[in-house]
Amino acid sequence: MEPKTSSRFELYLERARPRIDAALHRYLPPASALPAPLHASMRYSIFAGGKRLRPALCLLACESVCGSSAAALPAAAALEMIHTFSLIHDDLPGMDNDDYRRGRLANHKVFGEGMAILAGDALLALSFSTLLKVRRRGVDPCALLDTVVEATGTRGMIGGQALDLLGERKRLPLKQVLSMHRRKTGMLLRGSLLLGARIGGAAPAEIRRFAAFGERVGLAFQIVDDLLNVRSTARELGKAVGSDRARGKSTVPGVVGVARAERGAERLLLSAQRLAPRLGRRAAEFESLTEYLLRRSH
Amino acid sequence: MEPKTSSRFELYLERARPRIDAALHRYLPPASALPAPLHASMRYSIFAGGKRLRPALCLLACESVCGSSAAALPAAAALEMIHTFSLIHDDLPGMDNDDYRRGRLANHKVFGEGMAILAGDALLALSFSTLLKVRRRGVDPCALLDTVVEATGTRGMIGGQALDLLGERKRLPLKQVLSMHRRKTGMLLRGSLLLGARIGGAAPAEIRRFAAFGERVGLAFQIVDDLLNVRSTARELGKAVGSDRARGKSTVPGVVGVARAERGAERLLLSAQRLAPRLGRRAAEFESLTEYLLRRSH
Repeated sequence: MEPKTSSRFELYLERARPRIDAALHRYLPPASALPAPLHASMRYSIFAGGKRLRPALCLLACESVCGSSAAALPAAAALEMIHTFSLIHDDLPGMDNDDYRRGRLANHKVFGEGMAILAGDALLALSFSTLLKVRRRGVDPCALLDTVVEATGTRGMIGGQALDLLGERKRLPLKQVLSMHRRKTGMLLRGSLLLGARIGGAAPAEIRRFAAFGERVGLAFQIVDDLLNVRSTARELGKAVGSDRARGKSTVPGVVGVARAERGAERLLLSAQRLAPRLGRRAAEFESLTEYLLRRSH
Repeated sequence: MEPKTSSRFELYLERARPRIDAALHRYLPPASALPAPLHASMRYSIFAGGKRLRPALCLLACESVCGSSAAALPAAAALEMIHTFSLIHDDLPGMDNDDYRRGRLANHKVFGEGMAILAGDALLALSFSTLLKVRRRGVDPCALLDTVVEATGTRGMIGGQALDLLGERKRLPLKQVLSMHRRKTGMLLRGSLLLGARIGGAAPAEIRRFAAFGERVGLAFQIVDDLLNVRSTARELGKAVGSDRARGKSTVPGVVGVARAERGAERLLLSAQRLAPRLGRRAAEFESLTEYLLRRSH
């Protein structure tokens, strides 16, 4: 094992985590309130050891344009609720049928299928009212909500998961695999940056730069994830190795091979890296994020 | 068969329906856009012959306080999306496992379980951005959203469905059955009225009157539905008769018997009827609604 040296981005993740977790604790219904099993199910998956990548990107973008991220905390919590909702539903028997997630039993294996469906539904509903706890002068709540629905709905994550489902056991062409990943993973990562930038009061030109950076990093993130799925040991990933292939899922390494997928991720990340210096005060963290993903891609 | 004489409320439902359907067509993604099966699945259940009760209540409440309901149309469409999302998810094998809904195959029997889960998720996400298309001076979008999330989330419909699931094959006391129905059905019906009243610019005292009326009608509506489930023929209801009992669901008639359930519904509806005259310009329609439910209860 190589010695652990955390990058600038990883240090930011570590520092942001307690703030994000505190916000999540605050906005989720108390575990003791009725119906307790529903709330327990929501909390089980929210506090299951996620990296809080999307909330951290939201806070980073906000800090990058305005210096302070306190106003963006409700949005950060909302993003993690949406991400968690998607993980719970993706693991269901009617979807990807995964029994494990991050090395722990999947939500539906602990709370049952019906309660897992409802916990996902409840997190999605709650995310929207949590998002609109952002009250900042000059920030239009409707624009925030539209950003999140675009990233989450049929043009975003949910649409991407539908494409994924429809593509199972088919050999999709690369173009379709990329389009699926852009929606399924890219849109919410991009949306996290846009949300933070909007809350920070970013100008339209700044928003466009975050969008361009987010598109590259979001797509690369999924390719890197698929590369890890091909290569890693079960212990590291916390789920069955090569499970994508076993399920007949189309992935970039599956379609063009590992070497070309690595080069593709690298190209995207280098392009994102060139955009990073113009992303404001947190440019160094964004650059470090691309390096962090580049390291994981090999 | 008795001759068909439509009540004032039913006439309103019939007249409102084309406007509501046109709004739904406008706000749903086009069936041809990618991923087409996801959009087809959403449209299949939205246009499956629902009565549009919740949207109509929203329009009625808005008209009752301000005279015009055009501004409330996006909210009306959003309510039907939320109602439809709940029907799709409730019918899933992991939930109530119903193969039929309104005499047609349930969504998951046509599009598969995974696509049905995603169609429900997508309708829920879309409902929130549709809701915020309501732009009316003096109406706070955050208050509208909070009203809908309260009615939909863990304190409303989704929480009620969780209580329903947890109560299966148990003999729940009446108090718990009532609490489950209040959340599962009552909260969204009440919320539909509150939403319309808020969009119409209702004063706090008016909002409270709509809430009191909605609580009574909402609970009575579920008891009447359960009475119909006990008594009706499969043809009329479009689903298996007595299916609640077969599934071990607790209902008011199941717990206290048909006669006491009828008297309970009647008491609630008469109490609502006494509130109706103070609900504004559409008081006659609201009174007619209570009579319509009274007729169905026997």
